[in-house]
Amino acid sequence: MVEWAQLAYLKDTQVNISSEFSIIKKYLSGIGASYLNTNGINLAGGDDCAVIAANSKLLISTDTSVVGVHFLKSMPADSIAYRSVAIALSDIAAMGGKPLAFNLSLAMPKFNPDWMKAFKRGLQKISREFKLPLIGGDLVKGPLQISVTVLGRPEKKILQRSNAQSGDILCLSGAVGSGYIGLKEYKRSGELNNKTKPYLFPSAQIDYGRMIASFTSSAIDISDGIIQDLSHLISSSGVGCILDLDKVPVVDKQYVKQCLEFGDDYQLLFTVPPKKLLALQDKLNSCKKKCHTIGVMGGKKLILTNNNGSIKNWDHFQ
Amino acid sequence: MVEWAQLAYLKDTQVNISSEFSIIKKYLSGIGASYLNTNGINLAGGDDCAVIAANSKLLISTDTSVVGVHFLKSMPADSIAYRSVAIALSDIAAMGGKPLAFNLSLAMPKFNPDWMKAFKRGLQKISREFKLPLIGGDLVKGPLQISVTVLGRPEKKILQRSNAQSGDILCLSGAVGSGYIGLKEYKRSGELNNKTKPYLFPSAQIDYGRMIASFTSSAIDISDGIIQDLSHLISSSGVGCILDLDKVPVVDKQYVKQCLEFGDDYQLLFTVPPKKLLALQDKLNSCKKKCHTIGVMGGKKLILTNNNGSIKNWDHFQ
Repeated sequence: MVEWAQLAYLKDTQVNISSEFSIIKKYLSGIGASYLNTNGINLAGGDDCAVIAANSKLLISTDTSVVGVHFLKSMPADSIAYRSVAIALSDIAAMGGKPLAFNLSLAMPKFNPDWMKAFKRGLQKISREFKLPLIGGDLVKGPLQISVTVLGRPEKKILQRSNAQSGDILCLSGAVGSGYIGLKEYKRSGELNNKTKPYLFPSAQIDYGRMIASFTSSAIDISDGIIQDLSHLISSSGVGCILDLDKVPVVDKQYVKQCLEFGDDYQLLFTVPPKKLLALQDKLNSCKKKCHTIGVMGGKKLILTNNNGSIKNWDHFQ
Repeated sequence: MVEWAQLAYLKDTQVNISSEFSIIKKYLSGIGASYLNTNGINLAGGDDCAVIAANSKLLISTDTSVVGVHFLKSMPADSIAYRSVAIALSDIAAMGGKPLAFNLSLAMPKFNPDWMKAFKRGLQKISREFKLPLIGGDLVKGPLQISVTVLGRPEKKILQRSNAQSGDILCLSGAVGSGYIGLKEYKRSGELNNKTKPYLFPSAQIDYGRMIASFTSSAIDISDGIIQDLSHLISSSGVGCILDLDKVPVVDKQYVKQCLEFGDDYQLLFTVPPKKLLALQDKLNSCKKKCHTIGVMGGKKLILTNNNGSIKNWDHFQ
């Protein structure tokens, strides 16, 4: 169909310009425009495609957020916008990359200026935070869904899921459960507070991912829950793991099981060869970042050692 | 969330692998995999991001298709898949580019194996036709929507909307109205036939776009209808146009007005400096492609000369 159009109204013609283009112009154009040059974007918005001057490898990832599945209709539109982009950025973080730009496809059932204004604020917030321009996308009528494609530039070493080795230490960037606890608290209070903030405005671990890239053998984000994402890492790498669940930091100890199985967290799960662990920990500590050692790779199975009963994974289709 | 996972089932573990990943594995993995190397794709599926080895400029465009808005629920799933990708490819065509790969985000309310099988067939069909691998995306639960992001490599000259000059000839690659006539006929017959095929399986004008790139001053596809898209070209270029509507070829002369205003066509509209027109026409003729001259650029207004009454544009939000 059509890209974000930087459309000057045509006056004195016989043609009516549609509201789609005026919405794009008012609410979705120019976001992060000051980062275009630095990030190698030659052309953004207003044409059929955006143009990127890519002189190295590029990372690309797409994530879709659906009302009632990935977020609540009642959530503030700035949060809906912010977290839709953050979730996609998290995949760039998990590859140890630096984000360059994003595309946004927004389907919405009707136009509400206040909602759009807040949505724009959310996009501006995350754009500023990661110095990231919005370079195009699509605006369509339909049930509320946001699909975000992020482009990134990898570090020299691209962090994959598939290179974990037997003997590597399994590490986690931070506590799990902010998705579960944040949503639960938001449903209760409907407020932005310390508990809901990590859910409403989740932090993509971009700096963390870039920092660990040269030390680690594999990494993944834990958006689908730590067990499920660990399963992906294991099967990609062809090596098992013993995970000590009691070592996994959780946001709220009253809800250990839920924190472990809910997902919607954006911490990084990664493996480090033992001889590199201390150097990595020193580096992270010096930047006041944590590194939780929670297991060890080896064998052919995933073995969970814990006292919390069986673990179930969150699955959209069950 | 998660990329297309090439997931080997983990046996003998305590972990259930979710159906999301088995759907991805069965229906959305490996499509166009034989084109990965040629198209510079280092990594596709099964990790957080895909990795592209980009040594030149890249084009990127996203298009979203929504059930009941951009396609009918009753349409065959192979057509839904095919046209969702074709629509995105059309933007690459309009920039004169060669498509390299695509990302697909599929939201669907429930899993139906027959539907998924047909959907996969549609993806394979367009993948083969354009030698295009599917390199990642997202599968989520939600109202049926398909969001496709296409990456492409431009020719030396990137065809933009913004360079039309006064005196340039306005040209069109083929007849308008196959969207309107095809949908109308599909609603009547529910069949794949000569009339519905251009609607169910629209042709992205990739070859055409690459062929005209070095001759033309500007181009756009006419997915939103010829008048609306001409308006974009005019406003981007800052030059008016006289369009002779009677010269615009239409698919069915009984429905001139509808063919002109409905959109959902994927022909290219472009401008050519007069001195290059003959050479371009020769080139196109030698490949049995048409080039309809339908107007001339100039002035500050869009002037429509026609005998068919006033023209209204198709707008999702009206």
